[in-house]
Amino acid sequence: MSDTSRTDYDRLVERLSARGLDVAAIEQRLADHRIETPSWGYANAGTRFGSYPPAGLPSTPFEKFDDAAEVHRLTGITPSVAIHIPWDQLENYGELKAHAESLGLEVGTVNPNLFGDQRYKLGSLANPDAAVRRLATDHMLECIEIAREVGSTGLSLWLPDGTNYAGQDSFVARRRRLHESLSEVYAALDADMELLVEYKLYEPAFYASELADWGASLLTCQKLGPKAKVLVDLGHHAQGVNIEQIVAFLDDEDRLGGFHFNNRKYGDDDLIVGSVNPFELFLIYTELAAMPTLPRLTIDQAFIVEHKIEGMVLSVVNLQEAFAKALLVDRVALAERQAAGDVLGAHELLLDAFRTDVRPLTAKVREEKGAAADPVAAFRDGDWWERVGSRRTAAATTGGLGA
Amino acid sequence: MSDTSRTDYDRLVERLSARGLDVAAIEQRLADHRIETPSWGYANAGTRFGSYPPAGLPSTPFEKFDDAAEVHRLTGITPSVAIHIPWDQLENYGELKAHAESLGLEVGTVNPNLFGDQRYKLGSLANPDAAVRRLATDHMLECIEIAREVGSTGLSLWLPDGTNYAGQDSFVARRRRLHESLSEVYAALDADMELLVEYKLYEPAFYASELADWGASLLTCQKLGPKAKVLVDLGHHAQGVNIEQIVAFLDDEDRLGGFHFNNRKYGDDDLIVGSVNPFELFLIYTELAAMPTLPRLTIDQAFIVEHKIEGMVLSVVNLQEAFAKALLVDRVALAERQAAGDVLGAHELLLDAFRTDVRPLTAKVREEKGAAADPVAAFRDGDWWERVGSRRTAAATTGGLGA
Amino acid sequence: MSDTSRTDYDRLVERLSARGLDVAAIEQRLADHRIETPSWGYANAGTRFGSYPPAGLPSTPFEKFDDAAEVHRLTGITPSVAIHIPWDQLENYGELKAHAESLGLEVGTVNPNLFGDQRYKLGSLANPDAAVRRLATDHMLECIEIAREVGSTGLSLWLPDGTNYAGQDSFVARRRRLHESLSEVYAALDADMELLVEYKLYEPAFYASELADWGASLLTCQKLGPKAKVLVDLGHHAQGVNIEQIVAFLDDEDRLGGFHFNNRKYGDDDLIVGSVNPFELFLIYTELAAMPTLPRLTIDQAFIVEHKIEGMVLSVVNLQEAFAKALLVDRVALAERQAAGDVLGAHELLLDAFRTDVRPLTAKVREEKGAAADPVAAFRDGDWWERVGSRRTAAATTGGLGA
Amino acid sequence: MSDTSRTDYDRLVERLSARGLDVAAIEQRLADHRIETPSWGYANAGTRFGSYPPAGLPSTPFEKFDDAAEVHRLTGITPSVAIHIPWDQLENYGELKAHAESLGLEVGTVNPNLFGDQRYKLGSLANPDAAVRRLATDHMLECIEIAREVGSTGLSLWLPDGTNYAGQDSFVARRRRLHESLSEVYAALDADMELLVEYKLYEPAFYASELADWGASLLTCQKLGPKAKVLVDLGHHAQGVNIEQIVAFLDDEDRLGGFHFNNRKYGDDDLIVGSVNPFELFLIYTELAAMPTLPRLTIDQAFIVEHKIEGMVLSVVNLQEAFAKALLVDRVALAERQAAGDVLGAHELLLDAFRTDVRPLTAKVREEKGAAADPVAAFRDGDWWERVGSRRTAAATTGGLGA
Repeated sequence: MSDTSRTDYDRLVERLSARGLDVAAIEQRLADHRIETPSWGYANAGTRFGSYPPAGLPSTPFEKFDDAAEVHRLTGITPSVAIHIPWDQLENYGELKAHAESLGLEVGTVNPNLFGDQRYKLGSLANPDAAVRRLATDHMLECIEIAREVGSTGLSLWLPDGTNYAGQDSFVARRRRLHESLSEVYAALDADMELLVEYKLYEPAFYASELADWGASLLTCQKLGPKAKVLVDLGHHAQGVNIEQIVAFLDDEDRLGGFHFNNRKYGDDDLIVGSVNPFELFLIYTELAAMPTLPRLTIDQAFIVEHKIEGMVLSVVNLQEAFAKALLVDRVALAERQAAGDVLGAHELLLDAFRTDVRPLTAKVREEKGAAADPVAAFRDGDWWERVGSRRTAAATTGGLGA
Repeated sequence: MSDTSRTDYDRLVERLSARGLDVAAIEQRLADHRIETPSWGYANAGTRFGSYPPAGLPSTPFEKFDDAAEVHRLTGITPSVAIHIPWDQLENYGELKAHAESLGLEVGTVNPNLFGDQRYKLGSLANPDAAVRRLATDHMLECIEIAREVGSTGLSLWLPDGTNYAGQDSFVARRRRLHESLSEVYAALDADMELLVEYKLYEPAFYASELADWGASLLTCQKLGPKAKVLVDLGHHAQGVNIEQIVAFLDDEDRLGGFHFNNRKYGDDDLIVGSVNPFELFLIYTELAAMPTLPRLTIDQAFIVEHKIEGMVLSVVNLQEAFAKALLVDRVALAERQAAGDVLGAHELLLDAFRTDVRPLTAKVREEKGAAADPVAAFRDGDWWERVGSRRTAAATTGGLGA
Repeated sequence: MSDTSRTDYDRLVERLSARGLDVAAIEQRLADHRIETPSWGYANAGTRFGSYPPAGLPSTPFEKFDDAAEVHRLTGITPSVAIHIPWDQLENYGELKAHAESLGLEVGTVNPNLFGDQRYKLGSLANPDAAVRRLATDHMLECIEIAREVGSTGLSLWLPDGTNYAGQDSFVARRRRLHESLSEVYAALDADMELLVEYKLYEPAFYASELADWGASLLTCQKLGPKAKVLVDLGHHAQGVNIEQIVAFLDDEDRLGGFHFNNRKYGDDDLIVGSVNPFELFLIYTELAAMPTLPRLTIDQAFIVEHKIEGMVLSVVNLQEAFAKALLVDRVALAERQAAGDVLGAHELLLDAFRTDVRPLTAKVREEKGAAADPVAAFRDGDWWERVGSRRTAAATTGGLGA
Repeated sequence: MSDTSRTDYDRLVERLSARGLDVAAIEQRLADHRIETPSWGYANAGTRFGSYPPAGLPSTPFEKFDDAAEVHRLTGITPSVAIHIPWDQLENYGELKAHAESLGLEVGTVNPNLFGDQRYKLGSLANPDAAVRRLATDHMLECIEIAREVGSTGLSLWLPDGTNYAGQDSFVARRRRLHESLSEVYAALDADMELLVEYKLYEPAFYASELADWGASLLTCQKLGPKAKVLVDLGHHAQGVNIEQIVAFLDDEDRLGGFHFNNRKYGDDDLIVGSVNPFELFLIYTELAAMPTLPRLTIDQAFIVEHKIEGMVLSVVNLQEAFAKALLVDRVALAERQAAGDVLGAHELLLDAFRTDVRPLTAKVREEKGAAADPVAAFRDGDWWERVGSRRTAAATTGGLGA
């Protein structure tokens, strides 16, 4: 730690301690904070209008893990990597597990793909055609098998199923087919596995999505059993929806499975975490910080015009700062003011925490882990391009509709 | 029925019969269709910027029922009237019941008011202050007693509780308080009573509402028991939310309690049913028409610049036409096309029904009930003003913020 | 016309005539109604999650025009086809023009592509890099040249430029660059050409779009000159925005260039026209019907799960019905009721027109043009697949992100 | 300044200076920053579901100014107070001007009321009835006269005019009536006066508002002349709209008249500035900070459940912090990174400024003005209630619809 950083850190500790906060305990919680990064976040991404793949993209699951290792090296809190099948399909998953371990990483949740096959045009697990449901269910079962091979306990489900036109299919029939397909998947889960059921208001379905909101996902989880939990993606809600309240309710129901973190201004924009409304991110972490254990925290973004590794690092930094600020909230005073109906007094306690510049604190925690005090600057000043990026030769693809 | 109406009716029957539809059965379902109108829909309404009460407004519950009787006279399908306490508070509810019966009406759901008392500033059933929760719970219990007195089996709950600022109160604490308060209310319900739990995204709470969506209401109902069901108000969703899907899901869960019908373009605009998107209304009725019995169907609007009785009549007519069109959908063909994945073929079956001009059919059904063939025209041509409106002397109020 | 159709038509004419409507004049306006279809609407489309190209897709501009000719054969009102460069790029555009003419078609607006080239990553006409702006400007100039070659007078501009992160670029700098680029394009227009400036709230830009709403497009047009007009795409607005009012205002400013017709429930869903809210479509046509001449009316959709030709035919039919209904509005009575402040009386005049089943009228007009009475049924019953689709061999592509 | 505050301030100055920032210049701009508070913000407010007026509310314009003086005493940057006619109507405005001056205040913009009179039911300046337009126009002219009397140069126009139902009135006719009415108002403005034309998507009109967005307001201003400028209220946009871009565009057109500051999550929630998305507020100030002079900056909120004076003070503090953070942005580096297409590099410069805890800086500036280092704490610890609030006897009103 530089002398000036030390000065800022000491002064911050002094201020927080004076407020009665246990800074050591806060640092411990920050040190224990874990963010999973997605293998697909290191690969090419775009909109339906095409993508602009930069040079240096990874072309294999192994290279994606190399990039994830760089993020972990810089931030110190991203030791696991979610994989996506078939994008990360391999003959031998043991090799990926070994590669991960050699990098100080582990394989995280396994994410099936239920839209890439041409037969999924009208849906996957809820498709009117039993043969397609069989295909999708088998893919889910295959992903459970892969999870076993890589030592993962999390099976994610983002279901793209839905309809584009009124009348295209029966809401209830689709729902029942979905539940039937998922029952088979659920039955195949190991005792220590979780099924994470994501919801999304729209896209790719534009009339109705099977799992459009937390209510639909939660009902599905109830029907399946206690190993099924809801996964919250910050970009999958209608405008205005209060996400932090949903998080609190799901936790109160013991059904909060975890997050896909990103940020959005319009639709499912999949932007860098905290880039649109960092206060909302802080409020979500204010709920998380009150939980005895954190659920699975995963980034799910699509880096289109920005550098993918730098974008991932920035997202992790933003998550870490949101958690740090949430840990500064004076919970005792908050509860007192809430009980007293002191509307602004309670609100101002959150504001006070949010306004605090926690960078000295997160820098300290990172440095103690051997990571970078300022991960973004370290990446910009570093030699990743020379070491890694420039040696890759993945061909740029154009994609996009109508091409 | 006039000769020209008869011509149109006969031609429509001919066309529908040729398509294999049982017109007599459709007419029977239309004849059995019941819409409840709200007593408060006949009284003054406005926005926070004030109201523009016209002459001729009713000033007592009895006069509101007189207006409801006019709507029933014209449409033939609105025999019950929802009441709101304390707006319709009386010493002796037996008198209101008798008045209703004398008009061929009955008293419908009882709607408590949980925002009018100054003590509800920070909430009612979920208020941090136990004394206020007691007040609100007692009011709910009082409404159950009133329901018994007027012979009603429906207790509505629109809960305005929520917060305006992050941190103002604990999401989980509020939720648990709400459930505790409601448990007492639920326990007091008679065996044949239903508690209808409404949800609303926002307003009057602008940060978080306790019951913000169908998921929150449904979870609450699950905790209470089978007599608690969800009430869907068409104006209480985020933009884009697929309401007809929610309706289908709630019915599949046996938790569809009923509707508050209106229409919106922006927020909770409380406009005339079907005035913004009549196709959406038709799609909702397409779900309803497939159910063995219809749930409680109630209008809940705020007539601000239009004539209140005419607006109510138009809403009823729009509901009746939506139901009539939904009954024209060829369900067998629809299921076949859905099963075959014939996306547009299935959609076009709905379009065909929606495009059909069902006015001859609904006119016939109304006439057979002794109501008006064209209720709106009948009202405009009628003498309600001379008979009733002109004799009323309710003082105009101005209201509005800052006044 | 079949006997039963004749019966319905005669009865409808009788009813409309009795209301004082000049049915012959209405039929003439329907006969003059022209809808342009987009070449790209016949080709593959999808979301960022991939596409599901069916067999029988056209693989050349010539084959796309063949499909457009089928739509024109069935509907009788789609004689022109918008082209997209470079998707429809050719060595010799005279051949396309000749092919079009041989099919009874003409080439419509020319649509440049400002997102497909990898250099457009950070924008095209507003890119911070002058070399990229040059590239984009030259492409626009090339499109003007193509327009001359194919005999088109319309140059469309859908500008995908924007930013994904706050601070990424200067709002004002981007705006001035855009205006500078466009000034050069505008100067190159022939006297009889129009530049149609589209706007869109978001996508592919997720923080700020250069031309995000009608105000931004209109200001740009004002700076360029009278040949620049605003193009309204129904799917490019924020939720709730009143499109028909914008249409009226643009026409009042003499800046309504035309439409890209589609429908949406969520984002820019690009669904079949009239499939989400046909009443809104009717209201837009109610404005259009009051104009002495109609602006350019073009369909712009992305058929993902439905048959593309059938979808296009259905869109045309829906547009024709919306226009027919709008022509039934009693304008004199409407103006009188509006002047008198008769809110519901005026509204009910629109409802009366909308409720009317105009299919006999549109069928009659189509039949007189030698098109199909029921174009959708004619397509479903027809032999397009045997004649055309089955002979095509365009390879299916998969696409989608992460692939 | 306390010793610990001094420590934090010195350290912040050291850090900012090391980054090349001219802290003295920044402090000067903060010292020159002026926020106008609204007289109606000190009075009762609510939703259509009623209001909960606390004890101690002002009951006259003079008392409202007393409260504004308290805010100015605590913050040091709110010397002017917007008034609303007729809520602040007086026989002798000279007395109000003298009272303001005695408190160190001045009277700010004059805000007419175009919804309170019963005759405005169908609109004011755009009403179909010429007599009502006359009434509204005369009220505007009266407000110009009042502005002269109180020494104000700003006439605000928030136009509630619009329609609730399709067909209710003609878009173009309403627009032309509005422009005709406003032309007369504009002609009456003194040379140094400005007409501030606000826009709002909806409420109280629920189908179409005359001035629904910045485009509509800007066109109106163009027709009137250079003294007409657009007023931006942060709560009056559709969800997702990028307000900071609109601000930049309006300034580039020399038509940015000023702001009504508040915050919203759903509709026009009128919450405390910066309480929902403080990052958005910072981005707006990032645009403002680049302008040579600031436009009129006014708070417009409705304090419903929170203490009104404390809420106002918090809003001012939030505005001041947003400005301070915006002044920390390294503009030279930002322009360089933008020109270089360094997407994240540019974005991170904004993040760096936003993350900085500027409270030592704003406290210093306030203290130098004789205001409070921590105005919210000073208010909470102060004796306003004893001195002022407890002596007031304004009767609580209940209000709300249906009452």
